[in-house]
Amino acid sequence: MSWIVRESGFDPERIAHHGNKFMIGNGVLGYRGTLEEFGKSELTATIVAGLYDKVGDKWREPVNAPNGLATAVFWDGAPLSVLKAVDPADAGARGKAGEGDARGDASPELVAHEQALDLRRAVHRRRSVFRTADGAEVAITSERFCSAVRPELIVSRIAVESSREGEFTIVTGIDGDVWDINGPHLERIESGTDAAGEVLSLTAWTQELGIPVTVAEAAEVRGGGEHQLLREDLSVRRRIQMRCRAGEPVEFVKYVAVWTGQDGAPARDVRTASAQSAREARQLGYDRLLQEHADRWERKWETSDMTVEGDEEAQLALRYSMYQLHIIAPDRSERVSIPARGLSGQVYKGAVFWDTEMFMLPFFLHTAPEVARNLMMYRVHTLDGAKRKAAEYGYDGAFYAWESQETGDDACTLFNVNDVFTGRPMRTYFRDKQVHISADVAYGIWQYYAFTGDESLLLDGGAEVAWECAKFFYSYGYFNPRKQRYEILDVTGPDEYHERVNNNAFTNRMVKECLRVALDAMEILRSRNPERYEALLAESAVSPEQIRDMHDRLYVPQPDAKDGLIEQFDRYYTLEDVSLPDLKGRMLHPHEYLGGGNGPATTTQILKQADVVLMLHLFKGDYAPSVKQANWAYYEPRTEHGSSLSACIYALVAADTGSPDWGYPYFMRTATIDLTGESKQYVGDLYIGGTHPAANGGAWMAAIQGFAGLRYDGNQAELRPALPSAWQAIEFPVCLRGGSYRIRVSRGEVVIKASGENSTAMRFSVRDQELAVAPGQEVRVPYEAAGSLDGQLGSARPSGVKH
Amino acid sequence: MSWIVRESGFDPERIAHHGNKFMIGNGVLGYRGTLEEFGKSELTATIVAGLYDKVGDKWREPVNAPNGLATAVFWDGAPLSVLKAVDPADAGARGKAGEGDARGDASPELVAHEQALDLRRAVHRRRSVFRTADGAEVAITSERFCSAVRPELIVSRIAVESSREGEFTIVTGIDGDVWDINGPHLERIESGTDAAGEVLSLTAWTQELGIPVTVAEAAEVRGGGEHQLLREDLSVRRRIQMRCRAGEPVEFVKYVAVWTGQDGAPARDVRTASAQSAREARQLGYDRLLQEHADRWERKWETSDMTVEGDEEAQLALRYSMYQLHIIAPDRSERVSIPARGLSGQVYKGAVFWDTEMFMLPFFLHTAPEVARNLMMYRVHTLDGAKRKAAEYGYDGAFYAWESQETGDDACTLFNVNDVFTGRPMRTYFRDKQVHISADVAYGIWQYYAFTGDESLLLDGGAEVAWECAKFFYSYGYFNPRKQRYEILDVTGPDEYHERVNNNAFTNRMVKECLRVALDAMEILRSRNPERYEALLAESAVSPEQIRDMHDRLYVPQPDAKDGLIEQFDRYYTLEDVSLPDLKGRMLHPHEYLGGGNGPATTTQILKQADVVLMLHLFKGDYAPSVKQANWAYYEPRTEHGSSLSACIYALVAADTGSPDWGYPYFMRTATIDLTGESKQYVGDLYIGGTHPAANGGAWMAAIQGFAGLRYDGNQAELRPALPSAWQAIEFPVCLRGGSYRIRVSRGEVVIKASGENSTAMRFSVRDQELAVAPGQEVRVPYEAAGSLDGQLGSARPSGVKH
Repeated sequence: MSWIVRESGFDPERIAHHGNKFMIGNGVLGYRGTLEEFGKSELTATIVAGLYDKVGDKWREPVNAPNGLATAVFWDGAPLSVLKAVDPADAGARGKAGEGDARGDASPELVAHEQALDLRRAVHRRRSVFRTADGAEVAITSERFCSAVRPELIVSRIAVESSREGEFTIVTGIDGDVWDINGPHLERIESGTDAAGEVLSLTAWTQELGIPVTVAEAAEVRGGGEHQLLREDLSVRRRIQMRCRAGEPVEFVKYVAVWTGQDGAPARDVRTASAQSAREARQLGYDRLLQEHADRWERKWETSDMTVEGDEEAQLALRYSMYQLHIIAPDRSERVSIPARGLSGQVYKGAVFWDTEMFMLPFFLHTAPEVARNLMMYRVHTLDGAKRKAAEYGYDGAFYAWESQETGDDACTLFNVNDVFTGRPMRTYFRDKQVHISADVAYGIWQYYAFTGDESLLLDGGAEVAWECAKFFYSYGYFNPRKQRYEILDVTGPDEYHERVNNNAFTNRMVKECLRVALDAMEILRSRNPERYEALLAESAVSPEQIRDMHDRLYVPQPDAKDGLIEQFDRYYTLEDVSLPDLKGRMLHPHEYLGGGNGPATTTQILKQADVVLMLHLFKGDYAPSVKQANWAYYEPRTEHGSSLSACIYALVAADTGSPDWGYPYFMRTATIDLTGESKQYVGDLYIGGTHPAANGGAWMAAIQGFAGLRYDGNQAELRPALPSAWQAIEFPVCLRGGSYRIRVSRGEVVIKASGENSTAMRFSVRDQELAVAPGQEVRVPYEAAGSLDGQLGSARPSGVKH
Repeated sequence: MSWIVRESGFDPERIAHHGNKFMIGNGVLGYRGTLEEFGKSELTATIVAGLYDKVGDKWREPVNAPNGLATAVFWDGAPLSVLKAVDPADAGARGKAGEGDARGDASPELVAHEQALDLRRAVHRRRSVFRTADGAEVAITSERFCSAVRPELIVSRIAVESSREGEFTIVTGIDGDVWDINGPHLERIESGTDAAGEVLSLTAWTQELGIPVTVAEAAEVRGGGEHQLLREDLSVRRRIQMRCRAGEPVEFVKYVAVWTGQDGAPARDVRTASAQSAREARQLGYDRLLQEHADRWERKWETSDMTVEGDEEAQLALRYSMYQLHIIAPDRSERVSIPARGLSGQVYKGAVFWDTEMFMLPFFLHTAPEVARNLMMYRVHTLDGAKRKAAEYGYDGAFYAWESQETGDDACTLFNVNDVFTGRPMRTYFRDKQVHISADVAYGIWQYYAFTGDESLLLDGGAEVAWECAKFFYSYGYFNPRKQRYEILDVTGPDEYHERVNNNAFTNRMVKECLRVALDAMEILRSRNPERYEALLAESAVSPEQIRDMHDRLYVPQPDAKDGLIEQFDRYYTLEDVSLPDLKGRMLHPHEYLGGGNGPATTTQILKQADVVLMLHLFKGDYAPSVKQANWAYYEPRTEHGSSLSACIYALVAADTGSPDWGYPYFMRTATIDLTGESKQYVGDLYIGGTHPAANGGAWMAAIQGFAGLRYDGNQAELRPALPSAWQAIEFPVCLRGGSYRIRVSRGEVVIKASGENSTAMRFSVRDQELAVAPGQEVRVPYEAAGSLDGQLGSARPSGVKH
């Protein structure tokens, strides 16, 4: 039951939302949860990880490959389409749906409709029942998956069944007329079939780099029928006419292979490979492909699925969150990472943000360290882009892209939001001032090393990345001669509503960590690869001693001795202390951007998202509970949660301070974001919809690192359970330093079970009780259940958070 | 002829402009050039230097004292008012004009009208001729002046003459219902007469500080008549009915004294003094008062008036510019300085800006050093305010107010302009980031010392001011560890369209000068007053050695080795290089502010006003002519001249580089700004009209320091003449180190005449010919006339400058 996400009925207003919600993917391909009869107007998309294109002076964004699943079904010439049932006037404009006449009232009526995701097997299902003009009930069911085994492959099976005998037509093939934000990205479309006429293919080239993209389709029709090839400028399709008998379904299967020349392969090879792939898939057949796919997913869940007892809604939301992360995880390539909107479309330029290191990495570190390594190796491979960016601004070292694509050059522009009042682009300081990104990267690299104990990332370039980031900060930082300290000036912290601030607590703390990581990573490099170490120093204008000096004398805003508050940045407290409802009451336009040059929040203490509180989460060991409580209570009412990265952090710190019930609504808001679709869709006039992998990762973090209270610093694992009232227990697998554990946290007891295949024992501490868990051992540790601490966040209320 | 400024005819649209243009004043009082029958709607104002008030949470601004010249004249019951002739519908609304009925068509018709200023004697004249319903021609003439001898006194003589015998009524007295921007500033109005009933007086108190203000009026009527006292809530007036004979003028004179309790005097004393003053004035009589006033003005002109041969228009404009400076010069007090809009009203909060040091001080240094000393002593007296401001922002030393009033606390708010699109206040960075103000103050102090050789200013607090400013910059500055230099970050330079920039060339150069001045001034203090010197060091966290280190290693952007250009600030060249017309074409609202958070200029290279070029003027000795030419040619087309401080600087540097004809239109634009009224009247929705003393000073600078080419560094005087084509010669007096000289620069010859009263000889250099001019000596120096150099500014054209 809690493996299925389902929606009944059809609402055209939810087409875009369902496209995100019912996505499938395999880390290489992402296919939006649209229906077979949908086209570009319904935001159908097949996104290829790491494939970008730029048209004219518009921004670079992912390429939407031709749609190999495009299928229209007609009953007696009338389209069986959910869209037809909606608004016949629109149907004509949608055009691509097929060849049938728009029959107005004569169109088949939609009598039942359901869309569902089987999370366990990562299969999308659809069932629609139409009543035709002649009184027949015709059901279309379909099932599709992006093969977890064959990354180029999408397989779809469609069945048509009627209550009466009749004739229907299927028009299916490859549609090259795709949805684009800043496209069209594909040009010179060529289509054709193989020699046998069995495999359709459509090839096109990206505009900027001329990369060939081929989609090939092999089809299998059970029940025969008359075939006809339809070639148009932008598509190649088959038209199949069949008769079916009452109650006897007719099935057809599409094996769609998407190949590109991203690795430099010429178009000819790409074409051949895709046709070959489609053909092979057809030979293997639907059932075998589904089985190998489901088996692979079973293994993914073995190392990641958690069970929550007592909270079905949270259970499903958590599974769904993990599902979203799994379908976009780059488990085969260290050349791509995870974009902020996953593979759900072209929003946010398909770019990789700090979201990956801060909000997604923990999930993979604990459940799939090899993916975590890929994510961080992506940063190694994009180091040159980061160095180019630093040099562009006159700095040393590596200034990572705020919006990173395949080369690491920054896809972020200086103007990211349009002013709703003047329509003019607004200068924002994401690209040039959100310098914490370089520290976030170094942090992620060290996290991987600490979790896994695997030095290879450091030796394969990770140490160099950290060193270049440290060099960047040395050149970015300034020394205050009067105060005899280094400072980090003119930055934008996580709270993007306050741009160009000085000594942002989060940023300074992260920079300090980056400097430490660089020094420690370089020491490891020195001991393992002294030549490389010496080479790096030889080309560096800065010495480790200088980095050490900056580390030691870097100013990091500290908690006030009296009230424990940490000022978000210099002079933050002098800003107007307005309430969030009052601020929102000042808005003059519903999509008005609160930040930027003149945004209403900029002169107030209202923050976009967790900033100081994020620091308290990341460096939780450094701060007293009272400090965390005080800052949570101060900053939460002032937080707009205008980013999907915000709520989970408040959940985490609430749990950390023994107030899980305070944190629960923030957790649920995070965990359900892509289920409800209730997230910000516009900033200014910019559409920002899509999936939210950072929130998906944040939901996992809140559950495991927050409520279960798991902490691991590479040395000892710690559990500080703080379960929300509704939760009886949570049980989950985790991988620590290569060892596998299964942990169950219930009220008053923790059970830790180590895999028999582990090589060593692991030290655990459960609410300050220390123990070691040997390979194969199961340990039960009673603890005094929390809950009594709840309410310590004082007068703060979880304001403005929907659940 | 070229002593009179005159306007004929009456245009209601020009009431505000004429109020500025025809102002009179004496440095203590400023009286706008309005007509006797005008009231608050016509922006009548009597501004008292240094008297400020704040109402509620609106900004502080000067107090407009009750109007002692309010006078209405009626012929046969019908008002003789220019306003009546305009629009009878309006007249009723204006209300205060008098008691007569608005008679519609029966109102007297205005047949002739003229308003004039006699610059030589600083007397305002007015003549209006009305034709009455019964066919009489009635002329009203008036003459008024603010006594240059008695600072509290305004004297006005009004004559009425009719072509036919008839009866007229004068209603005249003191009107307390005054124009205010953020008022009302005066409360608790009390009015009365002296025991003899001869002196009217009206007393009121400022709201914030409760300072009493009394206006007393003694009147003298030649021709007798029936008097009646009218006391209303906000005014006290006399009603005088008289008969006059055809062709026989009837005259009355008003002696108005304005006293305040600014010095702490109680209301009783203020009242007594003002009545006494009015009475004494009446005893002395109009002619004697005018004579002593005119005599005093004759002496002002002796030390300042220049003659320009061959250019009547420039001659008048220059005299007018000097007139404007003289009427607002604080020649009696070192507690006030000159506000940016002089004493012309409440605009810009009556605040003193850097305008004084940079654009007005040179005039006074050369012509009235005692006024220059007062201006700089004002900064000494407001040091505490500057220290409070520095402390407010967490800095050491003195951060002078961007908008300084009587205490030196900053009257500038963080929100200075309203966004025309949203109506919201816009955060601007004048107050907190225009740090060059402290360097400007130190620069002015040193200029006074260098010009006069008078150490007293330094010993009386000037050295301390410079030292505190240097301390401020030491705490504001940062050391760049990688580049091993100090930098000045996050500032707004003169070009206010680019806020929060790093290493603004002008600012950094000024800071360097400030540090030098502080070190040199402190050395003088050490030698003259070692105790004070030691005391200052004892309370300072910074040593002279540290200031020296910052001075020596402070980064000042230098001319590019190839093209000689100096970048205005870090990364200025990366901004969009749009043309000024193109930028203006992007404006969506005529009053749209080009700067601020999202202003159209902020992301482009368009600058508000001379910035790099101002630096090249101030430090002209440090830069090669080719550098000046290159930067003039680069920056001028990119300058919007959105400030009245801009054009004169381009005139000066054009003259300096041997291109006076390029500079001439900029000079004329500056010199005529208050004559034509063609200046920016709105920024956003903020009214900024008034007089422009900085431009008045800039016009003088362009003529004397530019075209005549006079430079004096405290050691040797230099002349580098570069006369515009139209000019045959310019002749002017100048005071250098206490010696008086008369200099005549004609084409090919310079004549220098030293006063016989000078105590020593002065070294001059004329186009590199060195000579000494002994007391009483007249020296004629031929030189090779320039003009051939003209056109060296290359492809630049004096774009966008009206003449």
